[in-house]
Amino acid sequence: MSRNLGFAIVPPAVSPAPAPTAPMAAAPMTMPASPGEGFTAGRAFTVVLVGMPGAGKTSVGRRLAQRLGLPFKDADSEIEAAAGQPITEIFARYGEAHFREGERRVIGRILEGPPVVLATGGGAFNDPETRAAVKANGAAAIWLRASMQTLLRRVSGRATRPMFLNADPVEVLTRLMTARHPIYAEADIVIDCLDDEGPETTTDKVAAAVGSWGPPARLPVQLGDRGYDILVGAGLVSRAGALIAPVLAAKRVAIVTDASVGPLHLGTLRAGLESAGIEIRATVTVPAGEASKSVASLATVLEALMEAGVDRQTTVVALGGGVVGDLAGFAAATALRGLPFIQIPTTLLAQVDSSVGGKTGINLKAGKNLAGAFHQPRMVLADTGVLSTLPVRELRAGYAEVAKHGLLHGAMWEWCEGFGARAVAGDAAALRHAVLESCRLKAGVVAADEREESAEGGRALLNLGHTFGHAIEAECGYDGTLLHGEGVAIGLGLAARLSARLGYCDAALAARVEAHMASVGLPARIRDLPRGFTVEALMGRMRKDKKARDGGLRFVLLRAPGDVFTAGDVPAATVEALLREEGCTG
Amino acid sequence: MSRNLGFAIVPPAVSPAPAPTAPMAAAPMTMPASPGEGFTAGRAFTVVLVGMPGAGKTSVGRRLAQRLGLPFKDADSEIEAAAGQPITEIFARYGEAHFREGERRVIGRILEGPPVVLATGGGAFNDPETRAAVKANGAAAIWLRASMQTLLRRVSGRATRPMFLNADPVEVLTRLMTARHPIYAEADIVIDCLDDEGPETTTDKVAAAVGSWGPPARLPVQLGDRGYDILVGAGLVSRAGALIAPVLAAKRVAIVTDASVGPLHLGTLRAGLESAGIEIRATVTVPAGEASKSVASLATVLEALMEAGVDRQTTVVALGGGVVGDLAGFAAATALRGLPFIQIPTTLLAQVDSSVGGKTGINLKAGKNLAGAFHQPRMVLADTGVLSTLPVRELRAGYAEVAKHGLLHGAMWEWCEGFGARAVAGDAAALRHAVLESCRLKAGVVAADEREESAEGGRALLNLGHTFGHAIEAECGYDGTLLHGEGVAIGLGLAARLSARLGYCDAALAARVEAHMASVGLPARIRDLPRGFTVEALMGRMRKDKKARDGGLRFVLLRAPGDVFTAGDVPAATVEALLREEGCTG
Repeated sequence: MSRNLGFAIVPPAVSPAPAPTAPMAAAPMTMPASPGEGFTAGRAFTVVLVGMPGAGKTSVGRRLAQRLGLPFKDADSEIEAAAGQPITEIFARYGEAHFREGERRVIGRILEGPPVVLATGGGAFNDPETRAAVKANGAAAIWLRASMQTLLRRVSGRATRPMFLNADPVEVLTRLMTARHPIYAEADIVIDCLDDEGPETTTDKVAAAVGSWGPPARLPVQLGDRGYDILVGAGLVSRAGALIAPVLAAKRVAIVTDASVGPLHLGTLRAGLESAGIEIRATVTVPAGEASKSVASLATVLEALMEAGVDRQTTVVALGGGVVGDLAGFAAATALRGLPFIQIPTTLLAQVDSSVGGKTGINLKAGKNLAGAFHQPRMVLADTGVLSTLPVRELRAGYAEVAKHGLLHGAMWEWCEGFGARAVAGDAAALRHAVLESCRLKAGVVAADEREESAEGGRALLNLGHTFGHAIEAECGYDGTLLHGEGVAIGLGLAARLSARLGYCDAALAARVEAHMASVGLPARIRDLPRGFTVEALMGRMRKDKKARDGGLRFVLLRAPGDVFTAGDVPAATVEALLREEGCTG
Repeated sequence: MSRNLGFAIVPPAVSPAPAPTAPMAAAPMTMPASPGEGFTAGRAFTVVLVGMPGAGKTSVGRRLAQRLGLPFKDADSEIEAAAGQPITEIFARYGEAHFREGERRVIGRILEGPPVVLATGGGAFNDPETRAAVKANGAAAIWLRASMQTLLRRVSGRATRPMFLNADPVEVLTRLMTARHPIYAEADIVIDCLDDEGPETTTDKVAAAVGSWGPPARLPVQLGDRGYDILVGAGLVSRAGALIAPVLAAKRVAIVTDASVGPLHLGTLRAGLESAGIEIRATVTVPAGEASKSVASLATVLEALMEAGVDRQTTVVALGGGVVGDLAGFAAATALRGLPFIQIPTTLLAQVDSSVGGKTGINLKAGKNLAGAFHQPRMVLADTGVLSTLPVRELRAGYAEVAKHGLLHGAMWEWCEGFGARAVAGDAAALRHAVLESCRLKAGVVAADEREESAEGGRALLNLGHTFGHAIEAECGYDGTLLHGEGVAIGLGLAARLSARLGYCDAALAARVEAHMASVGLPARIRDLPRGFTVEALMGRMRKDKKARDGGLRFVLLRAPGDVFTAGDVPAATVEALLREEGCTG
């Protein structure tokens, strides 16, 4: 009846778990930071500012250097010093090619030295060798992106610059922007400089981004010719264009988002795509919430895609939580019998769970996710930076799936007990770690059982806590009184209690699971909810579970964290007794 | 720009084509009949009657033998003669096992001899060796299926039969029916004997079925683990249960049909499935017609499937034409993210085209088939017997796709010119040949390019005549004034004319294509239609064709029958000139 979890997984770098009941007290300073996460006194790196003339590279750079405690260098001044003559002279005497060669050499030398803040000339980053040197030396390139209007205002007084001599600045800037923006889009961080903001404000934004920056982790999902990468890191939405360009069939996309996420992130995404030269054929915004996972919303999205004239080379990009990802993915799977698809999940729940694995779909009257398709994305961008815009209740609910992954994995459970509360509190490094390790675990399970066809184990193990959780959620009516993750949190506790009752594990494990849920602010037991349930109602829901086979009750059970199995032969009486003990009536 | 049709295909056994303009006059008697098609003076075979006691095996058998000019043999009498004692005696003295052994020997001997009509005892067909011997000797087993009521009335006077001695006949019959019906369902032909019909009427029905019977042709579609068989033959719907049972995940199905087809064939299908012990979980009937290929109908079918409690082992069976097949197939592809699926196409168009290849889908506002899935069936039952219920205009329209396959194939085009008119006139052997060879051609193309991903050639070749055809059809508004096949017929002529205009073939080929369409009663040229078209409107439609790439016009062109290629660089001016010449205005 059982099979152990057999997937290989790279254990996350964790310190031993502290006592489970007081994780924060025991190990507040030993939070495992992945290498390359954020600029700190202990981990400095060179910051390279790129952008158009007038974007503010020098003025922001000087201020940033002071904040970070690094020397400031201006590439143009360094070149002039090395050449012993002004840049206008070098251009006039030897031509641009000669200047670029010198620029490449000077910048390369600086990158190989100790950390500095380096402002580059507007064309320096166009050089592929320079871009490679930035990456190779562990520096971070920051694009100060500004509008034509802003740039014009700022360069108006600089007619002495060689490129504006005897030329119409609008024409020069337009030509440069067209050529350079797709290259700037490859920077590690993109900062939008608004027209009315001073260098101090821009510097604030850059410093914040540098403070939490690390190169995104790239996690391959091994599915043969349907394989793809999950990228995890901060600031990915603004850099989406450069990141997804290599996997696009053609440089055109259609975006699907919802009315909550659109106002927060759609502008950033559009700018990120357009600066990489990607055409946005359509933007479809559906109402926020579970009700959009309907046949009607599917029709709306499909009709909108066709109206916009998408073809088979147009990629559908889902920007939003699980509802948007499932709906847009299903539309992508079926529009013209299958369009390429990219997920940009904006909730913790979607980042750690629904965006990975290729399950897409909608709800029917009889239940959730009853119609859909397996349709793997071409890429998942899990931008942990956007999680800061999430209501804390949603962040917490998403964390329940992280805890589930912890229980499936074993060592990751100890990380959860030690540092999960920091993730729920919004700590950027903890969130990044939680997302990365969750995706790693889920990708491994999915790769081994893509279409959920394993008789035992496989993808079904991901339903740990979900048989109970779905039943409680369904009883509450999907009206927001109980979030999916809150149902899962209670379900995890019940799964552990059921395992203990069946003799597979100690009652202490169940208590430990419940204590952890409570410690991160999640409901841990049925009695934590403001309403009651009858045994009959919950049992009825569980018998109708999509994964139930021939009417039998299926559960995922625990022997220990990391030792989990599917069981199709759990006696109904045992489950009923447990529910009664937990306070259900009837 | 071009690539030849590279699939291997077994050439059909055809006699050389007669002069194309008068095919019927030149070769009326040389219609190529596939071996094993129908009982004729030149091709007699043994007919084995099986069924319950009281079904009428002896009384029908004697009359049938006289009609077919064959000797009649009664297996029980032959056994009594061989044993030299009555069957009641053999049962009483030696037991049933001994009797069955003798029965098997006697029947085996008869099957190896010259053709006869053989009535068997009610239990004889239960023996696997006997069933194998029927098949091995080229005999046809016919199940005379009768209701409990009919049987009871007929056996009431036969208390001397050993099985009814001292027993309640209802109980005995119920027990036997439960055990034997799933075995009888494996017979080659199933004939329903109604309560009030005499043996003469039943004999009429049996003789008609035998007259056109041949073992179904089995055509494998080579798609690896998604491969399946297409069965082509008469009487398959009534035998559906036994035929599909080997490919079912579990013995339960949900049937999708429409309001036109249901009344004609649903009863036969239900009886055929139920007699093989297959549970019918749901029957969903949608309105007949193109309007059912909608998001709303998809929702109706999905909700009905869930309401009926289908699970992932329930197979969706589509009984109907292209609309039902496309809709049910899409529902099967998406219900619970994918249920197994079986096609029972009931129109010529569906049998020769839409049921093969795995394309499923619905229409959107912007056009036909814009949403859907590739979802291969587990089996296709193309029952050529049901084509006799089809309106002649629909049969003719379906034939247009046969002619298209002829042009793609080459040798098959000569068969079309010689015998296509017989298929359109309803000749059973010609229809069977047309369906079989069409499926063989299409299966070969699909196997080489399942998801239509070939840059040139591949599945796109199946669109011969369709760029023009779809445009004309769309202009007519899908309201039944022009059937899809009628548009294709005109499109084939136009494709040939365009090929000639571009210098790929002779103008004589275009004339030949048009002459053939006219000879089978199909519209052959735009001017054959009662309405006019503008060049602008048709060009606009063709530019929006789903297969158009980056706005270019794509056509499938001809060098000769069997030498066909895709072309993406046809000058718009050439197409416009052709349309003008064909009578379009503007």
